[in-house]
Amino acid sequence: MRDLGIGLIGTGFMGRAHALAFHNAKAVFDLPLNLKLAALADADPQRARQCAHSWGFETAHSDWQQLIDDPKVNLIAITTPNHLHFPMAMAALAAGKPVYCEKPLAVSLEQAEQMRQAAKAAGVVTRVGYNYQHNPIIQRARDMIQRGELGQIISFQGEFSEDFMADPASPWSWRCEAAHAGGALADLGSHLLAMARHLLGDVEAVCADSQTVHHQRPASTGNAEQRAIAVDDQVHALLRFANGARGTVSSSWLKHGYKNHLSFEISGTLGTLAFDQERLNELRLCRVGQAGFQRLLAGPDLPGYAAFSPAAGHQLGYNELKTLEVRELIMTLAGERGSGTDFEEAWEVERLAAAIRVAAREERWVKVRER
Amino acid sequence: MRDLGIGLIGTGFMGRAHALAFHNAKAVFDLPLNLKLAALADADPQRARQCAHSWGFETAHSDWQQLIDDPKVNLIAITTPNHLHFPMAMAALAAGKPVYCEKPLAVSLEQAEQMRQAAKAAGVVTRVGYNYQHNPIIQRARDMIQRGELGQIISFQGEFSEDFMADPASPWSWRCEAAHAGGALADLGSHLLAMARHLLGDVEAVCADSQTVHHQRPASTGNAEQRAIAVDDQVHALLRFANGARGTVSSSWLKHGYKNHLSFEISGTLGTLAFDQERLNELRLCRVGQAGFQRLLAGPDLPGYAAFSPAAGHQLGYNELKTLEVRELIMTLAGERGSGTDFEEAWEVERLAAAIRVAAREERWVKVRER
Amino acid sequence: MRDLGIGLIGTGFMGRAHALAFHNAKAVFDLPLNLKLAALADADPQRARQCAHSWGFETAHSDWQQLIDDPKVNLIAITTPNHLHFPMAMAALAAGKPVYCEKPLAVSLEQAEQMRQAAKAAGVVTRVGYNYQHNPIIQRARDMIQRGELGQIISFQGEFSEDFMADPASPWSWRCEAAHAGGALADLGSHLLAMARHLLGDVEAVCADSQTVHHQRPASTGNAEQRAIAVDDQVHALLRFANGARGTVSSSWLKHGYKNHLSFEISGTLGTLAFDQERLNELRLCRVGQAGFQRLLAGPDLPGYAAFSPAAGHQLGYNELKTLEVRELIMTLAGERGSGTDFEEAWEVERLAAAIRVAAREERWVKVRER
Amino acid sequence: MRDLGIGLIGTGFMGRAHALAFHNAKAVFDLPLNLKLAALADADPQRARQCAHSWGFETAHSDWQQLIDDPKVNLIAITTPNHLHFPMAMAALAAGKPVYCEKPLAVSLEQAEQMRQAAKAAGVVTRVGYNYQHNPIIQRARDMIQRGELGQIISFQGEFSEDFMADPASPWSWRCEAAHAGGALADLGSHLLAMARHLLGDVEAVCADSQTVHHQRPASTGNAEQRAIAVDDQVHALLRFANGARGTVSSSWLKHGYKNHLSFEISGTLGTLAFDQERLNELRLCRVGQAGFQRLLAGPDLPGYAAFSPAAGHQLGYNELKTLEVRELIMTLAGERGSGTDFEEAWEVERLAAAIRVAAREERWVKVRER
Repeated sequence: MRDLGIGLIGTGFMGRAHALAFHNAKAVFDLPLNLKLAALADADPQRARQCAHSWGFETAHSDWQQLIDDPKVNLIAITTPNHLHFPMAMAALAAGKPVYCEKPLAVSLEQAEQMRQAAKAAGVVTRVGYNYQHNPIIQRARDMIQRGELGQIISFQGEFSEDFMADPASPWSWRCEAAHAGGALADLGSHLLAMARHLLGDVEAVCADSQTVHHQRPASTGNAEQRAIAVDDQVHALLRFANGARGTVSSSWLKHGYKNHLSFEISGTLGTLAFDQERLNELRLCRVGQAGFQRLLAGPDLPGYAAFSPAAGHQLGYNELKTLEVRELIMTLAGERGSGTDFEEAWEVERLAAAIRVAAREERWVKVRER
Repeated sequence: MRDLGIGLIGTGFMGRAHALAFHNAKAVFDLPLNLKLAALADADPQRARQCAHSWGFETAHSDWQQLIDDPKVNLIAITTPNHLHFPMAMAALAAGKPVYCEKPLAVSLEQAEQMRQAAKAAGVVTRVGYNYQHNPIIQRARDMIQRGELGQIISFQGEFSEDFMADPASPWSWRCEAAHAGGALADLGSHLLAMARHLLGDVEAVCADSQTVHHQRPASTGNAEQRAIAVDDQVHALLRFANGARGTVSSSWLKHGYKNHLSFEISGTLGTLAFDQERLNELRLCRVGQAGFQRLLAGPDLPGYAAFSPAAGHQLGYNELKTLEVRELIMTLAGERGSGTDFEEAWEVERLAAAIRVAAREERWVKVRER
Repeated sequence: MRDLGIGLIGTGFMGRAHALAFHNAKAVFDLPLNLKLAALADADPQRARQCAHSWGFETAHSDWQQLIDDPKVNLIAITTPNHLHFPMAMAALAAGKPVYCEKPLAVSLEQAEQMRQAAKAAGVVTRVGYNYQHNPIIQRARDMIQRGELGQIISFQGEFSEDFMADPASPWSWRCEAAHAGGALADLGSHLLAMARHLLGDVEAVCADSQTVHHQRPASTGNAEQRAIAVDDQVHALLRFANGARGTVSSSWLKHGYKNHLSFEISGTLGTLAFDQERLNELRLCRVGQAGFQRLLAGPDLPGYAAFSPAAGHQLGYNELKTLEVRELIMTLAGERGSGTDFEEAWEVERLAAAIRVAAREERWVKVRER
Repeated sequence: MRDLGIGLIGTGFMGRAHALAFHNAKAVFDLPLNLKLAALADADPQRARQCAHSWGFETAHSDWQQLIDDPKVNLIAITTPNHLHFPMAMAALAAGKPVYCEKPLAVSLEQAEQMRQAAKAAGVVTRVGYNYQHNPIIQRARDMIQRGELGQIISFQGEFSEDFMADPASPWSWRCEAAHAGGALADLGSHLLAMARHLLGDVEAVCADSQTVHHQRPASTGNAEQRAIAVDDQVHALLRFANGARGTVSSSWLKHGYKNHLSFEISGTLGTLAFDQERLNELRLCRVGQAGFQRLLAGPDLPGYAAFSPAAGHQLGYNELKTLEVRELIMTLAGERGSGTDFEEAWEVERLAAAIRVAAREERWVKVRER
């Protein structure tokens, strides 16, 4: 079995999530490649060494270019702040190595476009970390839709709301800068748009309304100095899908009571299904002829779930969705057909978000392909 | 105490609901007027007599104009099919009598405009039966909003979906005719628009998307003949409220699993509240600083509830909302300040729905006052 | 159609509930008897007159015996405090008149036994107001059980908890006296036991544990004087049903968060169903082969519901259960087979509660027929 | 930092869960010992080698005694079938090595008693895998109880039900043998009893009712031959806690609709809290003065959660509870005070289950210390 040397850049929360996911994918699945945790990079050499030890990586680098150039490294995983995705991914692609980059793909549609073109030119496998899609119960939902179990899909109503910026005293951060892919639409909404595309496919046209509610925030916690804020706190949009379905999406980071409310209801001529990421192991489903919604709790009838537990109701956690994402990536690298979001698809998500921004700014319907 | 003679036109489901509501309002509340069930009208003389007997009305008419002219009748209640609201209400207003008309006010905005003007000219009390607003827990929600308990209101997300037309074999009916105020927006959505206005006030601008999914239906049950359908099966819209809030509304009569899903979430800078008519005795509320949503179950701390039960959790039913509506009407007729939707406000609801229709047809944002 | 003269004793919350129920039953149902609100009795003559006027009764009495003797009265409805049920019902039976008595039947098993014997001797129709049983969705549940849709019933887990005595500063009241049928078991638990019998039939043996948590309470609100309390604040019991099912029942009036939590889960070899009175229009059901629980929302497929509304999801309220109870009583009086709890069955409920009290006191299993 | 060599016996679902938990604990936590995956044992030498490779263990054994004797092994983890817990744990204790054994401790109270005595004599750290207790939200619940936030605890109502044996055609397995700790009480109920003790402490007396519903099952899937079944399919019990609380516990493996319904409600004089393992990241809580239950969703304010995710609502999965259990064990081995169930406490759980069996068999209240 061929070795696959993993090179991981970044040691924050997502860095550790990747490290665990690579290890656990190896333990949980019967993979076609032999994963080696080859190298870890962090700008701080001491942190790089320490994390490499704790997480089981063979080598530590403080220069990410060295990691990319390391001949033992066959896959570049990027978990650094958003604005670094572009230079790192471009360097990896230039080196002809597959890239697994955290979301968002880039901090501008122009960068995303370049990355998509570079990936196409390099001809290597690429992935962007939209791990919510790898939830086995989401895969079940997608299968149901694609097999026609819900009939013709006629509506999608989606929302991704949280409350982490609800306090106007929550200070400015990079999330408040458009140049770092900040704002509710880019930060949260992009997950929802990716999910909508994952489940229903292309969106043709959008109309939207976005709003900045708190126009300034403290420069830092408890700081009297205020910084002006220009990014959106909430956005609402109308969507027209290529398959004929219509719908709404909403995203807010000001909505009290919600912590991770990536949710949707999909209505078809033969049934309705509903999901909320705050209860990620559940679907609600009502098929034609049923009196009301039924709760489906994830169990080992879902292949992705069975890998982690032989018994229903045990529940997967967020981190296990990452392990499932890694598995699909490895399968794809081995030449089998794994699912996941490549640079092309991630660019589509960015293009859709950009169309929503134009529609909101210009107060009109926008065709996504205008961009 | 002054007598108030009730004249009721119509003996269908809503006719009976009115009859019960007048009787029960008298038994439950300490009203300032002495209600008399004076006269009942139905085009079928035998049915008029029979219902008058069962429901306790003194006189039966088969000609509704006679009921309006009956000197013992001081209030005209109209529960006939939608297209008859206009002639009956105009006749009542011409006779200088207060009118209590079931929703919708009329089958066209032009009629609604005339009725509004006639009511203004007559200077009498008018009411339209948007009884969901009289739910004591909705009154609590409105009070909370108006007292600022939720802070500045920033979003409204509303939906009214049912499944009663989901089956494409459900036959044509008057609900499928625009000229009878048919379609999902007029039939269901108008309740939602009325509720949005009741809670948050004026809407300034809308953008919308509406769709006919099933373009034909059987002419009658089991009939092979098909009739073409032009009214909307579902509609989605963006709303901008005068108070600065933004939002979405959706309405569908094709959505499997929902029976009476008039629901909304209202987000403010100090909290979020949520409601679903399928559980009409409950609010979900999360105030700033609370970890998650709390369930509030209607109880006798709500004045309207206390009239019906001294104990929390006993639950009011749909018909009791009608009794509460009647009480507010009677208070208003007695010169006290009762709540409710008058012809002016009902016309505002119709105008808002009309703006949504234009926005959908012309694929652009529409200012409600354009109309 | 024969007249039926109603004589109602009591003008409190339940008195008014009866008055409304008789009126509404007449309006809603096609009854085989012509209901007349013949006479109302209250010890306070002025209140009797006032309520008779508001509620539409022909005559007012201040002496309940006169009401019983009134020849226009054919049915005696008793809604007075618990300790008066016995003398009033015995007088009505002595007069050979049918009796409709609020629950509990009596304040002691001995009284209940006499009332049951007197009813048997009189040979008249009797009813006790366990109106929760008349919920159409409960009737659906009972039908499902009796038709075997859940297979062999193997367990019943029931609870009736509220929080209205949770505050130790809630003062003493008659509910704190065993001699007035006070205590959590008698006040709340008896509803649950009646429901258990309604759904599953006879209980053969019980074991139980009951507890007084707050041994004294203020003599009245804000009073420094304390009165000793001897009745149970909570009770837990094991039940063995004659049909082989086993189960638990719990009742507490100290349980924060619950307002009317009369709830149960019934498990059978072919399915599980669950109910909570706090959402009285819903059942949760999981049949064999289904992945999870499904919500059933009351609709017009349930005959009792259809009488009140032609559309699902409109919801019945507590007071309408009373109207349904009256309908069943009237059907029975007309010689048709109406459902409901007669004195014999109400005595069975009292006997079961008494067995639970003995089991708790003597710390042993008790056969219900021991009593 | 001192090395700690892990020796793991067993390669089934729980074996892999242990392997992942040891690895992930090292990556997620800043542990005081340096974990080494030293040795893995399985009776099948090839499987032992293969799993050792996949899971990262240095050595593979086919003889578990050799693993215990391996000088590089400092901790013995036992994940074999129940009847092997006794000989393996006794051998490990004889070798003076700490033991981490999956639940149940043993297949009889007599074995459990010997193991408890041996552990006491050996003076080493012991743990039994009741990992549900390590859920951070359960720790929050326990802290609330112990700090008196719910006031005096007055009731515990617990249930652990699943449906995996609901089908009478589900074949015989070791779970159907009392000698292998089979039956609903031993298999599921023991988790609930451990949880009850974890949260509320000692139980003084019990009364119980248990039942075998299906008296025979196929010898194997699809086999016509039937085997007699003697273990309980469901059990219901009354509990009296030493702290004065009273309660019920129920356990069934025949209850349609439930997959992992380890649930409880705890009522105190100042509040009620509720939990269901099927939604392991949530608590429902109602404090005195609150109108209704509030949902608490696990977030990084809970220390155990923060180790896995910096954001609320991301959700932990079942396998992460195991990682948390390992962390507590390692802290304890390092001389710090980690939580968890040692052999003494696991014996208390077995003794409580045994008392329930006696109470059911002899149809009487049993004092737990009788045993």
